[in-house]
Amino acid sequence: MAHISIIGTGNMGQAISSVVTRGGNTVELLGRTDIDKPITGDIVVLAVPYPAVDQVLAQRGGQLEGKIVVDITNPVNFETFDSLTVPADSSAAAEIAGKLPGSRVLKAFNTTFAGTLAAGTVGPLATTVLVAGDDADAKASLVDVITAAGLKAIDAGALKRAREMEALGFLQISLAAKEKVSWTGGFGVVA
Amino acid sequence: MAHISIIGTGNMGQAISSVVTRGGNTVELLGRTDIDKPITGDIVVLAVPYPAVDQVLAQRGGQLEGKIVVDITNPVNFETFDSLTVPADSSAAAEIAGKLPGSRVLKAFNTTFAGTLAAGTVGPLATTVLVAGDDADAKASLVDVITAAGLKAIDAGALKRAREMEALGFLQISLAAKEKVSWTGGFGVVA
Repeated sequence: MAHISIIGTGNMGQAISSVVTRGGNTVELLGRTDIDKPITGDIVVLAVPYPAVDQVLAQRGGQLEGKIVVDITNPVNFETFDSLTVPADSSAAAEIAGKLPGSRVLKAFNTTFAGTLAAGTVGPLATTVLVAGDDADAKASLVDVITAAGLKAIDAGALKRAREMEALGFLQISLAAKEKVSWTGGFGVVA
Repeated sequence: MAHISIIGTGNMGQAISSVVTRGGNTVELLGRTDIDKPITGDIVVLAVPYPAVDQVLAQRGGQLEGKIVVDITNPVNFETFDSLTVPADSSAAAEIAGKLPGSRVLKAFNTTFAGTLAAGTVGPLATTVLVAGDDADAKASLVDVITAAGLKAIDAGALKRAREMEALGFLQISLAAKEKVSWTGGFGVVA
């Protein structure tokens, strides 16, 4: 059984928490007031907006050493909705991995809205979580947690692919913001 | 009724041709040996691989003046499958638009495999074509052609969004190349 720590109690943190428990794994959900609580999970999900990640790393960085750290962010410029806030040749995941050399960083959950994680479906399709990262064992551990919940997971390749996943996440958010797709829809995967 | 010229007779050119005629519109499909045939369509689809676009523009550039030009390319580095060949802060569509100041350039069809255009479905979903561009009338003309065929179309925003569409196209191709999705599947859109 896997034990997962989720930092952030917003829509995404709650949805991912529901995925974890649905699969029979255990979760601790850590909010802003839980700074003194130690991180007990082997997998740690950073379920905070990208601009809040640095603060989490400042508070918790040492505790993330040796752990699998999951970046779920879409670093969208939410003022303009017209660009990402990370360099064009980088990604939020790459930036975070650079700050956590002792952790195995994965990108996941950024291409699925909270509603489709909670429901387990995107329209007629099972919700599919894309997982990218450079450590095969770390990816396999997260994939197990996802598939145990009845969702599908696809290994999207190396952490470098986070750049394309964040572009997809940005595009999906921009379509939802313009009501071209709903927040319970978006991109589904047909294997 | 719209008249569409498609330059390129490969899988994508043929699939887009079938979409056009299914909707009751007319098409001319121009191959490599048709250099001397004039372009008669009001909408011109560049259905050639990205490295072949420059040659088409050299041969046909003047004839594209005043027309709607549709870029469908995914400028993937097919040797490494690990990056795109355009600058990180640009896109194939932006590069092409820069070379065709007298044309209205759209990005479309790069996020749908030939098989899903021909079938009209991605698994249980109707195939959805994303269309980006800076000219609303041009986008509406292409959307009409697509929806007349029974496919769905979504206005994905300004031509700047081609960057994210190409990232999505690249990710989808990389998943198909690794047999994570089939060439008749991939990303479907749930509105």
